[in-house]
Amino acid sequence: MDNAAPKPLTVTGAVLDGESVGLRCVEGTIAALGPDVGPGAGDETIDAGGAPLVAPLVNGHTHAAMTLFRGYGGDLPLMRWLREAIWPVEAKLKADDVYWGTRLACLEMIRTGTARFWDMYWHPAASARAVRDAGLRATIGGPIFDAEGGTEEMKASALASLDELAAFAPRVGASLAPHAIYTVTEELLRWAAELARERDVALQIHLSETEREVEECVARHGARPAFYLDRLGVLGERTVLAHGVWLDGKELDLIAERGCTLVANPAANMKLAVGGFLPYPAAREAGVAVGLGTDGAGSNDSLDLFSDLKLFALSQRHAAGDPTVLPAKEAWEVATGARAPLLTAGEPLSVGGPADFLLLGRDAYELAVGDLYAALVYAANGAVVDTTVVAGRVLMRGGEVEDAAEIVAKAAERARRLGIG
Amino acid sequence: MDNAAPKPLTVTGAVLDGESVGLRCVEGTIAALGPDVGPGAGDETIDAGGAPLVAPLVNGHTHAAMTLFRGYGGDLPLMRWLREAIWPVEAKLKADDVYWGTRLACLEMIRTGTARFWDMYWHPAASARAVRDAGLRATIGGPIFDAEGGTEEMKASALASLDELAAFAPRVGASLAPHAIYTVTEELLRWAAELARERDVALQIHLSETEREVEECVARHGARPAFYLDRLGVLGERTVLAHGVWLDGKELDLIAERGCTLVANPAANMKLAVGGFLPYPAAREAGVAVGLGTDGAGSNDSLDLFSDLKLFALSQRHAAGDPTVLPAKEAWEVATGARAPLLTAGEPLSVGGPADFLLLGRDAYELAVGDLYAALVYAANGAVVDTTVVAGRVLMRGGEVEDAAEIVAKAAERARRLGIG
Repeated sequence: MDNAAPKPLTVTGAVLDGESVGLRCVEGTIAALGPDVGPGAGDETIDAGGAPLVAPLVNGHTHAAMTLFRGYGGDLPLMRWLREAIWPVEAKLKADDVYWGTRLACLEMIRTGTARFWDMYWHPAASARAVRDAGLRATIGGPIFDAEGGTEEMKASALASLDELAAFAPRVGASLAPHAIYTVTEELLRWAAELARERDVALQIHLSETEREVEECVARHGARPAFYLDRLGVLGERTVLAHGVWLDGKELDLIAERGCTLVANPAANMKLAVGGFLPYPAAREAGVAVGLGTDGAGSNDSLDLFSDLKLFALSQRHAAGDPTVLPAKEAWEVATGARAPLLTAGEPLSVGGPADFLLLGRDAYELAVGDLYAALVYAANGAVVDTTVVAGRVLMRGGEVEDAAEIVAKAAERARRLGIG
Repeated sequence: MDNAAPKPLTVTGAVLDGESVGLRCVEGTIAALGPDVGPGAGDETIDAGGAPLVAPLVNGHTHAAMTLFRGYGGDLPLMRWLREAIWPVEAKLKADDVYWGTRLACLEMIRTGTARFWDMYWHPAASARAVRDAGLRATIGGPIFDAEGGTEEMKASALASLDELAAFAPRVGASLAPHAIYTVTEELLRWAAELARERDVALQIHLSETEREVEECVARHGARPAFYLDRLGVLGERTVLAHGVWLDGKELDLIAERGCTLVANPAANMKLAVGGFLPYPAAREAGVAVGLGTDGAGSNDSLDLFSDLKLFALSQRHAAGDPTVLPAKEAWEVATGARAPLLTAGEPLSVGGPADFLLLGRDAYELAVGDLYAALVYAANGAVVDTTVVAGRVLMRGGEVEDAAEIVAKAAERARRLGIG
């Protein structure tokens, strides 16, 4: 994709919160938004014809290139899945595999209304290239871990990836991604936290996904995982904690105090049968910023965040034994990053904010009756999205994404090369 | 829709279990299927161009016209939702409301690959008319209940609806639909069971959806719900039991022995927070026939059975604490009725079987890599379906359903008339 700034784009006749509006995008930013906004001379224009206009979704935790592993060994138990299926293939991964796997992921995200995602995977510069070429936004980190040695190599690799990723700013943000407390030593965790602060980049880490992780942490470090991480300086305002299934009330208070962002991954939690869900009502009460993620396609296996949005709302109602625990509009806010500003590219649908938005299908059966947010959370899947615009560029219109067939074919070819097609 | 028998339809170049096949449909039945099958003179033809060919899905339990109530009062607790939102509006329902609500439901089902559904709702003849006009198949029953009196009126109404529905055979099957053990008296349950046997029609009933239902049954009748129903003669080979969340092992053995069909409704169970799921592994071990349903759009709120299929697999893995409990292909079999033959219109994709099938998107990103069934269960949503054929008639091609915009507009108008648009 040509990444020169697109020419100004003006959308007319979109419906925002029940009101017909126009929206003008200039240089990737919303320059005007309101009932009387019309196109400037020479603008690209879209007549929305009454289609609902909404903020795009933000995928707060994924491993995008794992689309290549979709369904591969998916009925195995976790450790056999990793040891027999995933790790042997990951050992053979080349940068171009990651590039095409991430392009496939970006295609699915564009198709289903996700504008921005938080990624943790090998060959991070290849992912960044894919994000740039697809026209999306992401914060990316190459995973680091040293539980079986190699601390210095990991440091070198993390430093190199920060430099590589810097070339893709601002569309792609660089981050550090220590894998988890059980795969990264104290030394490397401390070092990563300090480097993140120094370089002013985000830090992403898996936290409290399984009960065993908590038990081992308490046994080894005398503290629950959040307190252990805090001791090492890892918890801060640019820290993103994925999963958080087994956090207790004191950990949630600490996470809120430190200003971290928590990301729920209900589909992966159920698929891997970890036994629970991020305790959202308690996190909300503690004041924690919460977003939503798909996790990798290897353990979901979809990147259609609408599916995870429904699952998030259903799983919270189920876990609480209370159908009133999470109003639909609030669930929608979690999925769009409205309750976790770090995850977003700025305030959506606001003048001066990023020119990222969705137009929904005008004749979508899911939207025929009732409340828009209830329909988006419970009735819709990603196919409800008709038009995806990111940074003022139209990435999908009428459900069609340019180059889709080529991307699918190339990704399939890379998967076959890895012996998993 | 014109319901005269369509002219013969031949599909070529479809991929079935990895093999390229042709398929010829004559008078609603598959007349030929295999590698060398081509069109007869004058056939309507479809070149599938390598698209995967699969059996359609079967929705084993729904209340189709409740699409009109989608999202209406959805964040209320169950009894307030019924008393304050649903019942007052249902009291105002006219046959044409049910007709257009069911047309909207049929549109969604065609769009997402469901060929046949089991329905329980007011004005059953209006639903039958909608099913006929949409070109789908269904078994329909008008709900009967008399916990607060009116037993004789209910009998009269049930008898009348059997006669009305008979006019729509064979596309629509008539059934009796006593609502549940806590809303129907012993007398009416016995009467319905006997009438179902006499008329050789199916009987649909909600069973063991909440723990309270079980407790009250034990307190009042000295037996758990399945044993209570058996005492009244309700359990037989044409009995469909929806929900079954709280069934114990002895009840599952009894249900298997009687040859009943159980239908899981995981989305509705989570949305209403009933606290559990149909115990599928135990039901499978007992030899029970199991299918999958969406329940009504009022408590799901989608009729895209692909969403429920994923949720069924995820919820079973979660509930068992074991990611190996339900292989993807087996979950697919539950959703297509392959493990509950009563629910289907006959053996799918077989010569002499119903000419009901789906062609999936050739370039679908969900199907780019990996096992087809894993992709269908975990990665796909209903938009993966490109072509829906029921009884040899093409109801959707290229994702487009005839009259979709009109149906959406008419249903929205009916909802507005009811004051819930």
